[in-house]
Amino acid sequence: MTFDEQLQEKIDLKTKPIKALGLLEDIAFKIGRIQQSLTPQLINPTIVVFAADHGLAKEGISAYPQEVTFQMVSNFLNEGAAINVFCKQNNIDLKIVDAGVNHNFPLSPILIDAKAGYGTKNLLANQAMSESELNFCFKMGQKIVGDIAKKGTNIIGFGEMGIGNTSSASLLMSVFLDLPIDKCVGNGTGLNAKQLQQKKQTLTAVLDAHPKPKTPQETLMFFGGFEIAQMCAAMLEAYEHNMIILVDGFIASSAFLCANRINPKIINNAIFCHKSDEIGHNLMLRSLEQKAILDLGMRLGEGTGCALAYPIIENAVAFLNNMASFQSANVSNK
Amino acid sequence: MTFDEQLQEKIDLKTKPIKALGLLEDIAFKIGRIQQSLTPQLINPTIVVFAADHGLAKEGISAYPQEVTFQMVSNFLNEGAAINVFCKQNNIDLKIVDAGVNHNFPLSPILIDAKAGYGTKNLLANQAMSESELNFCFKMGQKIVGDIAKKGTNIIGFGEMGIGNTSSASLLMSVFLDLPIDKCVGNGTGLNAKQLQQKKQTLTAVLDAHPKPKTPQETLMFFGGFEIAQMCAAMLEAYEHNMIILVDGFIASSAFLCANRINPKIINNAIFCHKSDEIGHNLMLRSLEQKAILDLGMRLGEGTGCALAYPIIENAVAFLNNMASFQSANVSNK
Repeated sequence: MTFDEQLQEKIDLKTKPIKALGLLEDIAFKIGRIQQSLTPQLINPTIVVFAADHGLAKEGISAYPQEVTFQMVSNFLNEGAAINVFCKQNNIDLKIVDAGVNHNFPLSPILIDAKAGYGTKNLLANQAMSESELNFCFKMGQKIVGDIAKKGTNIIGFGEMGIGNTSSASLLMSVFLDLPIDKCVGNGTGLNAKQLQQKKQTLTAVLDAHPKPKTPQETLMFFGGFEIAQMCAAMLEAYEHNMIILVDGFIASSAFLCANRINPKIINNAIFCHKSDEIGHNLMLRSLEQKAILDLGMRLGEGTGCALAYPIIENAVAFLNNMASFQSANVSNK
Repeated sequence: MTFDEQLQEKIDLKTKPIKALGLLEDIAFKIGRIQQSLTPQLINPTIVVFAADHGLAKEGISAYPQEVTFQMVSNFLNEGAAINVFCKQNNIDLKIVDAGVNHNFPLSPILIDAKAGYGTKNLLANQAMSESELNFCFKMGQKIVGDIAKKGTNIIGFGEMGIGNTSSASLLMSVFLDLPIDKCVGNGTGLNAKQLQQKKQTLTAVLDAHPKPKTPQETLMFFGGFEIAQMCAAMLEAYEHNMIILVDGFIASSAFLCANRINPKIINNAIFCHKSDEIGHNLMLRSLEQKAILDLGMRLGEGTGCALAYPIIENAVAFLNNMASFQSANVSNK
């Protein structure tokens, strides 16, 4: 038997009807396969939240003012945000990365300084970042995950904070999935119909203002997000360390789309944690042929979907390791 | 402000866009409302699995032979089943109830003896149970939950095991929702198309063999399941103790439908934990206007949906209690 067949047999001979644990069985299979083990383990789970500002935020594409980015990062550092609560509740390590926020933060044990600047440029008139800024982002994303890998972490989730970053994510989605921008734009943190129309017009103008990007890297450089670029690099590095990669919602998935273009094998290590309420996310998941674990109508980012899905993943690994088989439990099979 | 308004305001002023935590916000609201507290607590979570045999199992309506009921109960007592693994993983107390299994079990610290008989009668020729058996089931369901309440438990989930019990659940569903039996019958533990057809024919014959039940109690008496009757009584008693009631999948929901007919207020305390892959469950949820927390394509029973949803519920309570508000975190609101 191949390893895959052994793993599937172990799952099928547990005391339950075939496939009766649904998606949990797929998760257990995926993790066993990543670790090439019939008894996989989750070690030192960590979520990294990348934060940065966006020059485009000045164009009225978000329901919140730009300063909310730095205020929310301060909230993370003071352990008051949703991601803090969920990581604490589910025993997940949390790191916050200043990838390029328009603010200088005091030192903090959970803050990593990877500042590429004080926000990207306004995309209507400029590309988001320079090539050297992009390279810096890739180096920092790699280094951050490399450092975490040294602690033995084999499962890592990525989240983000950045007022305006659904706009960057929509632009990336439009390029990578070759879709009209209208299908990629949603309400973000809560736009009304008029504001949504404005956001669509602005992003159409942004696309018109730039040539078609030739590479995934160029796409990041044009439409950016320092946090998205670092997240993309971090995901690629997590794959190099053979970690299980937890993908959060719309913005994290846009970084994943980019990482997946650079290294298509990364899909083998990725678990999609939740289906965001942001309209484009469902299309992203379908394009990747992935089903998310949770569908709770959430649209918060911060890695909250990863943190909430983590206990489900723990349970998937637990059933694979600890449930009895029909034989060991003397239960009649069909 | 009314209490409900205070509770909603507390949720809305957390550092997140309005409604951004989706269903988690609804869960937090529901639990706060049950406990009439802005700082609700979950105490000593417990799952009770009711097990019983079904006379109808002889008619080839299940993919597994009847002895699997007692074998699986033995598996529960030996801590080898999925529900054991998930309860241990998520720190949930587990009790197994022999509501009427065709087997005598040795004493066990987690087993509760509430045996109403050695299985219900064959529904093709008889009603499932006598009135005195039904009354016994109601008394036992009440007593079991009353005893658990003494330990302070304020959140309780119910699961079941019983080869053939999707048939009872389908019959109850057909009566309570006034639907043709075809819409209520699914694959159970894994019937093929031919076996499914046979199950539908058998259940049609069962319905034809009995008069239309006049009360919820009579419906249980005709189409039964000792475990379903005890579960129904246990849910009603949990409501009397103002517990949060976690409803599992198809069979537990059929017990809930019955409990809801007896006391419609019970819906205020119920959280539907997962949408079962068993085809009728979606219709049940829609009839109750409830959205389940998880949709993992599971169809196992045992209370596994409750155990897996419990960490999500814990996270909902944690955000309500521990997240900062816009004001306390100095974050700009819209």
